[in-house]
Amino acid sequence: MEPRAEKLIRTSVPALDEILGQPFKVLDDGLIRVVDYMGDDNAVVQAARVSYGAGTRKVSDDRGLIRYLLQHRHTTPFEMCSLKLHLRVPMDAWRQWVRHRTASINETSTRYSLAIDSTQTTQSDQWRIQATDNKQGSDGWLDSDRGADLTRAENAFQSEAKRVYNERLELGVAREQARKDLPLCTYTEAYWKMDLHNLLHFLALRMDSHAQKEIRDYATIIGREIVSRWVPLTWEAFEDFRFQGTHFSRIETDILAANGAGDTEQAVAIARDAGWLKPSKKGGLIRSRERMEFEAKLDKLNLPVPWRV
Amino acid sequence: MEPRAEKLIRTSVPALDEILGQPFKVLDDGLIRVVDYMGDDNAVVQAARVSYGAGTRKVSDDRGLIRYLLQHRHTTPFEMCSLKLHLRVPMDAWRQWVRHRTASINETSTRYSLAIDSTQTTQSDQWRIQATDNKQGSDGWLDSDRGADLTRAENAFQSEAKRVYNERLELGVAREQARKDLPLCTYTEAYWKMDLHNLLHFLALRMDSHAQKEIRDYATIIGREIVSRWVPLTWEAFEDFRFQGTHFSRIETDILAANGAGDTEQAVAIARDAGWLKPSKKGGLIRSRERMEFEAKLDKLNLPVPWRV
Amino acid sequence: MEPRAEKLIRTSVPALDEILGQPFKVLDDGLIRVVDYMGDDNAVVQAARVSYGAGTRKVSDDRGLIRYLLQHRHTTPFEMCSLKLHLRVPMDAWRQWVRHRTASINETSTRYSLAIDSTQTTQSDQWRIQATDNKQGSDGWLDSDRGADLTRAENAFQSEAKRVYNERLELGVAREQARKDLPLCTYTEAYWKMDLHNLLHFLALRMDSHAQKEIRDYATIIGREIVSRWVPLTWEAFEDFRFQGTHFSRIETDILAANGAGDTEQAVAIARDAGWLKPSKKGGLIRSRERMEFEAKLDKLNLPVPWRV
Amino acid sequence: MEPRAEKLIRTSVPALDEILGQPFKVLDDGLIRVVDYMGDDNAVVQAARVSYGAGTRKVSDDRGLIRYLLQHRHTTPFEMCSLKLHLRVPMDAWRQWVRHRTASINETSTRYSLAIDSTQTTQSDQWRIQATDNKQGSDGWLDSDRGADLTRAENAFQSEAKRVYNERLELGVAREQARKDLPLCTYTEAYWKMDLHNLLHFLALRMDSHAQKEIRDYATIIGREIVSRWVPLTWEAFEDFRFQGTHFSRIETDILAANGAGDTEQAVAIARDAGWLKPSKKGGLIRSRERMEFEAKLDKLNLPVPWRV
Repeated sequence: MEPRAEKLIRTSVPALDEILGQPFKVLDDGLIRVVDYMGDDNAVVQAARVSYGAGTRKVSDDRGLIRYLLQHRHTTPFEMCSLKLHLRVPMDAWRQWVRHRTASINETSTRYSLAIDSTQTTQSDQWRIQATDNKQGSDGWLDSDRGADLTRAENAFQSEAKRVYNERLELGVAREQARKDLPLCTYTEAYWKMDLHNLLHFLALRMDSHAQKEIRDYATIIGREIVSRWVPLTWEAFEDFRFQGTHFSRIETDILAANGAGDTEQAVAIARDAGWLKPSKKGGLIRSRERMEFEAKLDKLNLPVPWRV
Repeated sequence: MEPRAEKLIRTSVPALDEILGQPFKVLDDGLIRVVDYMGDDNAVVQAARVSYGAGTRKVSDDRGLIRYLLQHRHTTPFEMCSLKLHLRVPMDAWRQWVRHRTASINETSTRYSLAIDSTQTTQSDQWRIQATDNKQGSDGWLDSDRGADLTRAENAFQSEAKRVYNERLELGVAREQARKDLPLCTYTEAYWKMDLHNLLHFLALRMDSHAQKEIRDYATIIGREIVSRWVPLTWEAFEDFRFQGTHFSRIETDILAANGAGDTEQAVAIARDAGWLKPSKKGGLIRSRERMEFEAKLDKLNLPVPWRV
Repeated sequence: MEPRAEKLIRTSVPALDEILGQPFKVLDDGLIRVVDYMGDDNAVVQAARVSYGAGTRKVSDDRGLIRYLLQHRHTTPFEMCSLKLHLRVPMDAWRQWVRHRTASINETSTRYSLAIDSTQTTQSDQWRIQATDNKQGSDGWLDSDRGADLTRAENAFQSEAKRVYNERLELGVAREQARKDLPLCTYTEAYWKMDLHNLLHFLALRMDSHAQKEIRDYATIIGREIVSRWVPLTWEAFEDFRFQGTHFSRIETDILAANGAGDTEQAVAIARDAGWLKPSKKGGLIRSRERMEFEAKLDKLNLPVPWRV
Repeated sequence: MEPRAEKLIRTSVPALDEILGQPFKVLDDGLIRVVDYMGDDNAVVQAARVSYGAGTRKVSDDRGLIRYLLQHRHTTPFEMCSLKLHLRVPMDAWRQWVRHRTASINETSTRYSLAIDSTQTTQSDQWRIQATDNKQGSDGWLDSDRGADLTRAENAFQSEAKRVYNERLELGVAREQARKDLPLCTYTEAYWKMDLHNLLHFLALRMDSHAQKEIRDYATIIGREIVSRWVPLTWEAFEDFRFQGTHFSRIETDILAANGAGDTEQAVAIARDAGWLKPSKKGGLIRSRERMEFEAKLDKLNLPVPWRV
């Protein structure tokens, strides 16, 4: 490093400065605002170059270096950037959010202050049906007649919740106790600060199609509207290498290799050894999650499934 | 270190083994159970001796060493022990609990499973009054007539909450969405694993009289019933040095020293320079939080307040 | 969870108990010993079941569940297990080791105690040649004549280092200062405690062929000799899904899909858009790290490289 | 929170901007430079107010609030600020530095690059004598005649170390192996990013008189030259409440209270129960570290030692 060559003004990102403090609306009454940030794509590069030294200069330009770092799961250069957001989120989604332990958080306290007088509401066409193939997910929407009933019941219940909360406060109950029956979907606010490496991990999990819709809505805005403006090269690399890639296990790799070599017999043998091809009593193969996930990947890649003839 | 001298069987603590898996009841329907643990007082000593070397052998016996480590805020030897608990806690208290980010947590998911059919209820003599001198606390109890009304309203509201939840499920709404209006005090369960250093920090904050009663009830059991059995020397040192000690700031230290030297004038001058002794318009001194906290400490120590004559 | 059904004795793993305290030799004078542990494969399963609830019982047996958790990068159930090792490692390798920040560490202090009187030495056939294609690696060995010269010089230098250190101590120099010129390869000892999730991350990086040989030797023993005994199902899943898998980026996935569909033209077009196929002035294609890594993966899978005809 | 009232430009601290990128010299060839930062005193206040709500507005002005937060060990508001430094430090001190695990670090790699051609050298009047009352410390300086001999030997040894390193490189040994005998005091460089809460913890430990002189020199500059400019209110509160305060244990508090009440007998009884007053065979009291540390505190406060008559 040559200290003198270092520039003497702070990193700033005009594209992010433009939206600083501007609220992005989420759900019916949620929001996300950028409060502050530190670093940019260049800070990632700068940190990598100090670590990996002069050698990295030859490897590639900045974009190539960032792609290399993300592909090979180098993490510390991305920690050199931080983002601080102001959030307004239903507590229900917030319960998932705070499980990301590397963030710094200051949340509105409902011991010190009154709870925010807002709960997430559901329109009649937004009630989601329990998925049958995915224990944790939803699949499609209820018809809006039933939905309208549910929405009416939701409104009535939320009004009653407010009445109960306010009644307690009026009678002098401590705020810390009065809040105990607030609905989980009551909005809360927080400052949330995260470094870029851990933020990308958050986004990989929470923008994923398996994440619950509510937190996915937040994560998608953070990713596509905020991070993409802040660190565009890192964002592009994240989408390519982390978010939209395909992973094959050792077994899958071996089957692909046998398949590629035209040795279908060997490919089938590997799958059989893995216990994927046991016959079901009803005919066909028994249900095997691993086999089915692999078949889905083969289909996506337009590659033949060796045991389907 | 002499590898051969090391004992070859795992550390175990008979006093803790005796209560392994046994539920401690907390609140109306909560519980704490020890599921597993690693290490004991001796593991703390062993780790300290490898760090601080042969020299520490002379310093003192094990008890003295543990006291020294705690007094001087050495932290890593205490990290060598871990405790794993099974908890059943209202989500409201759990929201505070999960803010301790160094724990490992597996909580029941209400996306995968039905919510636990239990909410924290309040008896008629348990409604706490909002404290006036402490924004975040409570002070005393409502009379039980009003309490009885509040308890009836709580019961009715919680029944309605269940009905709404079950109605949604019956109509096919996804569990992840049906739960959105559950009361905050709905019980949840979790495995919670923490190392001893961070556990003591948790206990220092959550056994404190300023902590909310609900989480304080849990913390007190973890401290007095579980940690005290598991690592009795560490627990004793924690009580002496961390939980029941007194801390004086630089200003307070300077005033104490002037006072001790009999120089009341100097003691008063230091307080005045700190802005503690400004006259109020109504007579007397203005309200100063720092001065008042110091006066309370002097009173506790039976030491004179220099500016009170 | 049904508290009563919980077993009341601590988890233990006989296969690991057998080697408790037994030193595994590493390098010329290093060692690894298991001091203590908490949890086993079953603790992972237990934690997952509390999180994902009754639903997971149907998904699969324990082995299938562990495989599912590892494949889909669920992390918290693996945090429920911890391993505590006693290590003796050259400080040079230790400098890399301590970069894993989630571990708890107590290292011998060379302020309190004398430095360990042992340095890593190199036999004449162990001098590695700087790799040319990999800035950070080595490739092959120096001939043993040159090696013998280097080893003699190493011995002489290490003797001189000891002499200098001891001379300072004899003259009364403080240990904390006397140590300043000790060679980086001086052995140090430590207790090192890590949870299983972070341990697997450590092993994925440090057992990798790109890791430096010294730390790789340690990691390989921890993985293949210790973790494999401790949590055999987790270890098998780790090898299959993390350590020996193959990852394709979005671009690579798109090319594979075009290739699979027989549309070589489209496959080539994707690569061209990615900037992989620019002609070099000398003929052939310009050097592109991403393209070359992909070609290597295609070769491994016996799949054709679309732009090679 | 009222989103609209939020200012839309990033926090900046002119007093810190002035020294951005400017190297502070440390030791003979070390340096510290501020590369970037996020937040300021106001960001601490802003985060506290969102947590503790409207109520905190009355408590006090910003300075009072920051003092309150530091006194009562509130931590999260201070995490909202981050500092990024460029450091040049001997690896020996760096070994202590990296034990602070909450930092983000990118260090020069001596696998990728050549080691920095600089080692910390010691002038003839800088050789410190091993302390006798403090196993880990030093106390005074060797006379400069002996010092001159040691410095000559140091120079010769460091030259030899360079020769050995360069000889290996010239013969083609891999950088990762050639470095193995570099002296611990070889300089390394790094970017180091830390949030303000954890930075204050680092400073409390490393500016302390028990810290080794080398790292104390760095910490003192970071504290007094950098943090004091960056967050002056936080720095003042840190000095008052954390760095220069006095802490009394439960036993000490009880003795102080008995003493204050004029009950010397009771004060002595408490000390006796604590095992502090056992007679020594040689006459006088046995050595008791806890008693002696308490006596030192009493002396500092000009308070009488009850058992000294």
